[in-house]
Amino acid sequence: MTKLTGKERSEALASLAGWSEVEGRDAIRKEFKFRNFSEAFGFMARVALAAEKMDHHPEWSNVYDRVDIVLSSHDIGGVSERDIKLAAKIEKLAGAKSA
Amino acid sequence: MTKLTGKERSEALASLAGWSEVEGRDAIRKEFKFRNFSEAFGFMARVALAAEKMDHHPEWSNVYDRVDIVLSSHDIGGVSERDIKLAAKIEKLAGAKSA
Repeated sequence: MTKLTGKERSEALASLAGWSEVEGRDAIRKEFKFRNFSEAFGFMARVALAAEKMDHHPEWSNVYDRVDIVLSSHDIGGVSERDIKLAAKIEKLAGAKSA
Repeated sequence: MTKLTGKERSEALASLAGWSEVEGRDAIRKEFKFRNFSEAFGFMARVALAAEKMDHHPEWSNVYDRVDIVLSSHDIGGVSERDIKLAAKIEKLAGAKSA
């Protein structure tokens, strides 16, 4: 697993609506907004199952109806194909919802 | 529901092992450490159910085996009896585990 850089990285990010580079760190982020806590945590539960299955986990926070997700591959210290794959899965689980 | 201050607050905090004041904000915090993501998220799921039942929700983040929880009552802009009650419930759910 290697860090995504250059054209490969920009193309991968372009395929993920609303995901952006984290400032000062090799990572990507997106904030999701839901109708309430129940909906937000339901989404988190589904992401948790997907993450555990992939053995690749998010750094995330939740405040009531908002879920902020940061993805990075700690072993390589940057964004890899695994982060793009998890982000794509998260997009599917979130449907069209985003902050 | 009013802000906890003075002796009432210090006594309430003293009853909650490992919980401390958040610097620069009227809130309390504790970090929990688990054996892995599965255990950490299992804990989060139980806290989520308790929080929804109390209609009082945490601000929290998770990175793999760690869960950082901040409690504050947004409607009064500070720590109230509801935060102490939720913290006590969280302690029960966490057992003796803490970072």
